Amino acid sequence: MIQGRVIGKIWSSRRVDSLPAGALLEVETEGGAKLIAFDPLGCNTGEAVLVTQGSVAAGYFKGKTAPVDALIIGSIDEENVSKA
Amino acid sequence: MIQGRVIGKIWSSRRVDSLPAGALLEVETEGGAKLIAFDPLGCNTGEAVLVTQGSVAAGYFKGKTAPVDALIIGSIDEENVSKA
Amino acid sequence: MIQGRVIGKIWSSRRVDSLPAGALLEVETEGGAKLIAFDPLGCNTGEAVLVTQGSVAAGYFKGKTAPVDALIIGSIDEENVSKA
Amino acid sequence: MIQGRVIGKIWSSRRVDSLPAGALLEVETEGGAKLIAFDPLGCNTGEAVLVTQGSVAAGYFKGKTAPVDALIIGSIDEENVSKA
Amino acid sequence: MIQGRVIGKIWSSRRVDSLPAGALLEVETEGGAKLIAFDPLGCNTGEAVLVTQGSVAAGYFKGKTAPVDALIIGSIDEENVSKA
Repeated sequence: MIQGRVIGKIWSSRRVDSLPAGALLEVETEGGAKLIAFDPLGCNTGEAVLVTQGSVAAGYFKGKTAPVDALIIGSIDEENVSKA
Repeated sequence: MIQGRVIGKIWSSRRVDSLPAGALLEVETEGGAKLIAFDPLGCNTGEAVLVTQGSVAAGYFKGKTAPVDALIIGSIDEENVSKA
Repeated sequence: MIQGRVIGKIWSSRRVDSLPAGALLEVETEGGAKLIAFDPLGCNTGEAVLVTQGSVAAGYFKGKTAPVDALIIGSIDEENVSKA
Repeated sequence: MIQGRVIGKIWSSRRVDSLPAGALLEVETEGGAKLIAFDPLGCNTGEAVLVTQGSVAAGYFKGKTAPVDALIIGSIDEENVSKA
Repeated sequence: MIQGRVIGKIWSSRRVDSLPAGALLEVETEGGAKLIAFDPLGCNTGEAVLVTQGSVAAGYFKGKTAPVDALIIGSIDEENVSKA
């Protein structure tokens, strides 16, 4: 997985039907790369998140074949990170 | 997923039979990388798009095994992006 | 998918049995990266090709589990590219 | 697979339910890239580890669909490495 | 697939049970990247090899779910390469 920080949100009105409804957040990784991840957790801009990629991201959507290759799977506890 | 912008279109007359008929667009990402994505939405050159990659892209083609590893799944609403 | 150009061919006499017989071409991408792709189309050195990667490349080989992660799925029509 | 060294640990209290309980370690690769891997082996900070990525990482979790795309599959014997 | 050259071997005594027994070789690609690949062919240090990556590498291990994302599928015939 990769760590990143939410830097924005995108909207897409014209989309394939199989894309599930939900937030599409722009995430910037530590190395500066940017990607768009589906967010089932309701994360906010500035939040540190854990993102999984590839077909395992689509596996989150049970009973459907979702064209989603990046999924936020956790919000990172930042107090613990700073103590480490 | 990644954000990109459509910069062109390619044609391939000599191709494997399992490649579905449809537009193959050249997309440039924010970082400057280029890739070719299958477009089921009829996007135009210059349009901002959302691209999914890997085996989940092929999952879009129901009932067949398509050799497609990049799929445009949405057109990005640019007014909202600029307001963010 | 990625666009590339065929720059050579490799031979491998000592190989795993599950690797299908066929041409293994060296392809250079626009960015300068090199990869080896299975070629079911009979492409020549210098030809512009469309390559798919990952598990969808292996899906081309029906009824067997081929350890192939890159497949040439089309020859790119170069006249059209130059007119674009 | 890639070789890396454990450089830290992250905690995520707010997470998707399908993420298995267990340690999430931060691993730095030889090239300097960082990733988060699930650790079923109880590795310590500073330990050299072998990490597998992609859908095969999720396959480790039998009978469930885990959104895990990076898994520590071994601790690297460092005495042997230095003798090589 | 990618071309590389075997530059070493790693040992991992403490490992997950599902990792098959066999050689784990360190391979350097033309671009200088390093990865660890499972070797079913008995390759030697210095040998030029063809490596497949991702879930198709795991597909080599029939009847088990192996956490292997990189597999040597061939030794490259170097005489032919130099004549090309």
